[in-house]
Amino acid sequence: MNDNVMKNHRILKYEGGELIETEDQVADEFPLTIFVNGEEFATMVCTPSYLEELIVGFLASEGIIRFKDEILALNINEDRGFAYVDVKNKQAVNSRSHSKRFIGSCCGKSRQFYLQSDVKTAKTIMRRSTISVDQCINLMKEMQDSSSDFHMTGGLHNAALCNTEEAIVSRSDIGRHNALDKIYGYCMQNKISLADKVIAFSGRISSEVLLKVSKIGVGIILSKSAPTTLALELADDLGITAVGFIRGNRLNVYTHPERITISK
Amino acid sequence: MNDNVMKNHRILKYEGGELIETEDQVADEFPLTIFVNGEEFATMVCTPSYLEELIVGFLASEGIIRFKDEILALNINEDRGFAYVDVKNKQAVNSRSHSKRFIGSCCGKSRQFYLQSDVKTAKTIMRRSTISVDQCINLMKEMQDSSSDFHMTGGLHNAALCNTEEAIVSRSDIGRHNALDKIYGYCMQNKISLADKVIAFSGRISSEVLLKVSKIGVGIILSKSAPTTLALELADDLGITAVGFIRGNRLNVYTHPERITISK
Repeated sequence: MNDNVMKNHRILKYEGGELIETEDQVADEFPLTIFVNGEEFATMVCTPSYLEELIVGFLASEGIIRFKDEILALNINEDRGFAYVDVKNKQAVNSRSHSKRFIGSCCGKSRQFYLQSDVKTAKTIMRRSTISVDQCINLMKEMQDSSSDFHMTGGLHNAALCNTEEAIVSRSDIGRHNALDKIYGYCMQNKISLADKVIAFSGRISSEVLLKVSKIGVGIILSKSAPTTLALELADDLGITAVGFIRGNRLNVYTHPERITISK
Repeated sequence: MNDNVMKNHRILKYEGGELIETEDQVADEFPLTIFVNGEEFATMVCTPSYLEELIVGFLASEGIIRFKDEILALNINEDRGFAYVDVKNKQAVNSRSHSKRFIGSCCGKSRQFYLQSDVKTAKTIMRRSTISVDQCINLMKEMQDSSSDFHMTGGLHNAALCNTEEAIVSRSDIGRHNALDKIYGYCMQNKISLADKVIAFSGRISSEVLLKVSKIGVGIILSKSAPTTLALELADDLGITAVGFIRGNRLNVYTHPERITISK
């Protein structure tokens, strides 16, 4: 566990009819403002761990960079919560269209993207790799066993990049999308091949989570929670297998079941 | 429960060694783009219930309006997911400072606001109303008992505006901040006096949740989950009593314990 994840805090605990002064561990929440080529680009609130991965993953996810080497300089001032990034593409942040609503259609299908920046970064996954239901159940069990009590009680989200047998890397954050951006940054920094990979996620599969998985380029998302309708429309359209409610020996396959097998 | 909250979806369920085709209920997720005075202002993803309350609460929370009657017209096109709002203040959305980072100090204290729009909308709560630990425990129990299984399995967040004895109104959303914006909108539309009110919330007390509570103008927030460090700094500064981990007969008081009593 990263040192910056939790901090001590004085509290009054009520237990057995009494209020007692004691100390408790509280999840750290850290505002980080990212400047791109000298312009204020975004302020996010995050868990202050793996900040470089978070920034790289976030900028890729927003379409500001496509490869790690498009970042010319990256300086983080942790005391002030500022990060300064220079990127090759000088037009990167000149457009105000990033947060603009977009509803379009493509190849005769209606695409449910709701932000224009997602149109250029979301990828349709064509890979036909498979995973068995037992492997799905084992990966989710591994993720839950490896999350400490602090993570769970502190309400942190966990995301793990896995092959079909085990987790390769896992990241935590108080923001669900940040945990996935850290994974994305890790993949870009380490040039990880995504052909046979799976993402296991501790939280709900929302449209935002589904889009991040598509941007990273992974075809299978596993969760112990439920998906949303918009996430399933996107998953259907972008070729992603969404598996939810993985609890005990049960699971639900919501989209693209052709990647799921019963035998190992 | 509102009709629009869940939708049916065909799934493959794995149970007892077999994949069986069946139907499941999935939480609806709906992109809503808000235009203010003809300009695109924001796109949010929400549960499509109580949209007018959501829009009113969101615009108040962003500092676009202070009172309900500053809205001259509000039209929602549910099919397209667009809402058109005319407000009195013609300069409302001309400023680009809304999403700009702000770290300042005020009255000799360092204020941990991270967005400039929060500076003008967050309120310091001076009220000295009190609540007993038993009342806190009962209100959280009432909230949990009234949430249906669908809400819980669908991962919806619940927020309830309460007096010390019972919930007055509760709202659900897939977005934690949206559930609170719906409560804010309800309060504005119905001119609810907030002097003796409490908010009970199903999720973690993040900085965003704490700021919403301050903007609504309520001095006590109850949660069964944990707070974050930044939320506690804000709570301390803005005079809000944060009570977390309300589970069984236990709870933790994190800030401003002067509002918490032991006897009823």
